Amino acid sequence: MIIALLTDFGTRDYFVGAMKGVILSINKDAKIIDLTHDIEPQNIKSAGFTLAAGYQNFPPKTIFVTVVDPGVGSARRAILVETTDYFFVAPDNGLLSFIFENETDFRVFELTNSGFFRPTVSRTFHGRDVFAPVGAWLSTGIEPDQFGKEVIDFISFEGVKPKVISPTELEAEIIHTDHFGNLVTNLKRSDLPEKFLLTVNQFVIEKHHNYYAEAERDEVFTIFGSAGYLEIVVFQNSASNLLKAATGNKITVKS
Amino acid sequence: MIIALLTDFGTRDYFVGAMKGVILSINKDAKIIDLTHDIEPQNIKSAGFTLAAGYQNFPPKTIFVTVVDPGVGSARRAILVETTDYFFVAPDNGLLSFIFENETDFRVFELTNSGFFRPTVSRTFHGRDVFAPVGAWLSTGIEPDQFGKEVIDFISFEGVKPKVISPTELEAEIIHTDHFGNLVTNLKRSDLPEKFLLTVNQFVIEKHHNYYAEAERDEVFTIFGSAGYLEIVVFQNSASNLLKAATGNKITVKS
Amino acid sequence: MIIALLTDFGTRDYFVGAMKGVILSINKDAKIIDLTHDIEPQNIKSAGFTLAAGYQNFPPKTIFVTVVDPGVGSARRAILVETTDYFFVAPDNGLLSFIFENETDFRVFELTNSGFFRPTVSRTFHGRDVFAPVGAWLSTGIEPDQFGKEVIDFISFEGVKPKVISPTELEAEIIHTDHFGNLVTNLKRSDLPEKFLLTVNQFVIEKHHNYYAEAERDEVFTIFGSAGYLEIVVFQNSASNLLKAATGNKITVKS
Repeated sequence: MIIALLTDFGTRDYFVGAMKGVILSINKDAKIIDLTHDIEPQNIKSAGFTLAAGYQNFPPKTIFVTVVDPGVGSARRAILVETTDYFFVAPDNGLLSFIFENETDFRVFELTNSGFFRPTVSRTFHGRDVFAPVGAWLSTGIEPDQFGKEVIDFISFEGVKPKVISPTELEAEIIHTDHFGNLVTNLKRSDLPEKFLLTVNQFVIEKHHNYYAEAERDEVFTIFGSAGYLEIVVFQNSASNLLKAATGNKITVKS
Repeated sequence: MIIALLTDFGTRDYFVGAMKGVILSINKDAKIIDLTHDIEPQNIKSAGFTLAAGYQNFPPKTIFVTVVDPGVGSARRAILVETTDYFFVAPDNGLLSFIFENETDFRVFELTNSGFFRPTVSRTFHGRDVFAPVGAWLSTGIEPDQFGKEVIDFISFEGVKPKVISPTELEAEIIHTDHFGNLVTNLKRSDLPEKFLLTVNQFVIEKHHNYYAEAERDEVFTIFGSAGYLEIVVFQNSASNLLKAATGNKITVKS
Repeated sequence: MIIALLTDFGTRDYFVGAMKGVILSINKDAKIIDLTHDIEPQNIKSAGFTLAAGYQNFPPKTIFVTVVDPGVGSARRAILVETTDYFFVAPDNGLLSFIFENETDFRVFELTNSGFFRPTVSRTFHGRDVFAPVGAWLSTGIEPDQFGKEVIDFISFEGVKPKVISPTELEAEIIHTDHFGNLVTNLKRSDLPEKFLLTVNQFVIEKHHNYYAEAERDEVFTIFGSAGYLEIVVFQNSASNLLKAATGNKITVKS
């Protein structure tokens, strides 16, 4: 059974290793896959996008253990989501918003059965003490409803989809900045008219290309990225640096 | 059989890949787990702490191959340690000090049987040429005493435990700086009185919290971390930057 | 079957996760090994060296999926190389130059059979859409010639071997800068006379050591590295910073 990990724990510390150890102690046959541990610290939106952009490539029954958890130790809930094909274990803080948006048929369970947690649960490291063991137990065949009761008031954050301001105006958002400095927006092809003008900070962008090869050096333009979202990019440069923009920035789209 | 890797080799180069290849060439069924390859270069204490903080989460019989090795190519010995539950392969430079401290029943073997090394051992890369193949052969069921004779004069570094200076004063040490800038000390709950004053550089810290949520923004305080050690932290900031402190710095504790 | 990955995708984004998902969806038993995803962006030479320095440590039949691909979306071809012991899947841009140089018996196939690609191939992410699925199908036992027809005009870049300028002069090149700042050249022991003078930028280096331990602090010298190539190093410092040199810089060698 595949357990895929996505966290903001970085790779310098013992955090990721501890999670892997906990998983293997419960299910030594688990196949652990690192998605990334380099989510920008506490950036739930970026984590949500990163998960959304890749999870459908995985085989059915994959278990995603995803931990970006600024509220660890507070009263925020922990959840397990079962969709038609996949399982997700995460804090209930909006990290799974894109999953809730993409999937039509899913159930959400609150993780309350501490019998599937580590015997002692720390206040600061639920990745090791709650999420890793729940993912591991799930991989052994425990049914989702054994982990806690179903809930329907789970959290989605704003910004999963652009807001319609008027028939000719949308308010969109940057939901991820990739390691090349490309700015991923929450705009899909179906959200956009044929021609549009996009404003981020004070910069107005009107160029849209279908292929990178159409661009000139240092030209700022938009393009649909490999995850299906509109991205603001600069050919061979960092759009994030050039436009001083980052995840969370609002964008205005006018047709 | 699980082989868990911890090194300071970074992830940019061929070093880690070469170790994995060597392991799989000897035991294609080995389950290789990356703990971290981002230990601060040559920081043996930080490596020792990182290993100590996570190894007990792994299932019995896990083999830890740990290489932070400033003395590679010199006369420093290479060792294999067998504890009740685990195996450790490492240079004999103190990296395993916390293991020697934690475990009560263990044996240490010097790696001298070059039949378990790569045919040619380089002067600069024992990770590939000595430690990886020894870990891999061990995973095939070779008995520890086949790798070399037992030794008792293995090396532990200072700073595994705080020093008692007087009935009211301890000299402690920072043994790790994590990727949030938190400063992990070698102080455990049992080392400390109810109330204490801690000095690092010229900074005096008297606040101690049980939970992060009790702290105010930019407040400097101590807290017991998820590894069981006292940590010096700043709420939503880097204690390392703010106090200009790093691994190896001494700390004075007064009650 | 082992599938080893080498890319310049970094570890912050969904790119590597997506490739892993695609592979596991085709062959859930594939054993995925991360070599590195931190190749300097678009640095084909550095990628080629990194692969060359480690691949021979892997067991026979290992499949290397290597993606550093500045030309993605253009007309550059994609290839599959079968050597006596290994398989390589890569863009046809010189990344495999060192393999072509090292191996005497190999065949190169152009990847044209889109039946082994993802149903929709994006313009920007052939790692996910072409190279990962081809590597995965190969791991299920598909014969190399099923992926496309054999070609002989594959691309090798300059700099795999030094150029002979005169009987006493070679033009060599830096092919990789490692994470310690060591500068790896394309010079092997057999290329070099007993005594030689090496010039990089305006710096002349005449010291050569057999072991690091022979050097003094901050001394600049050459040494044969663990990959078999001459490296320009500074004891306990970064040669790259000190000599302001990086991958691609030319070197003059005079005897």
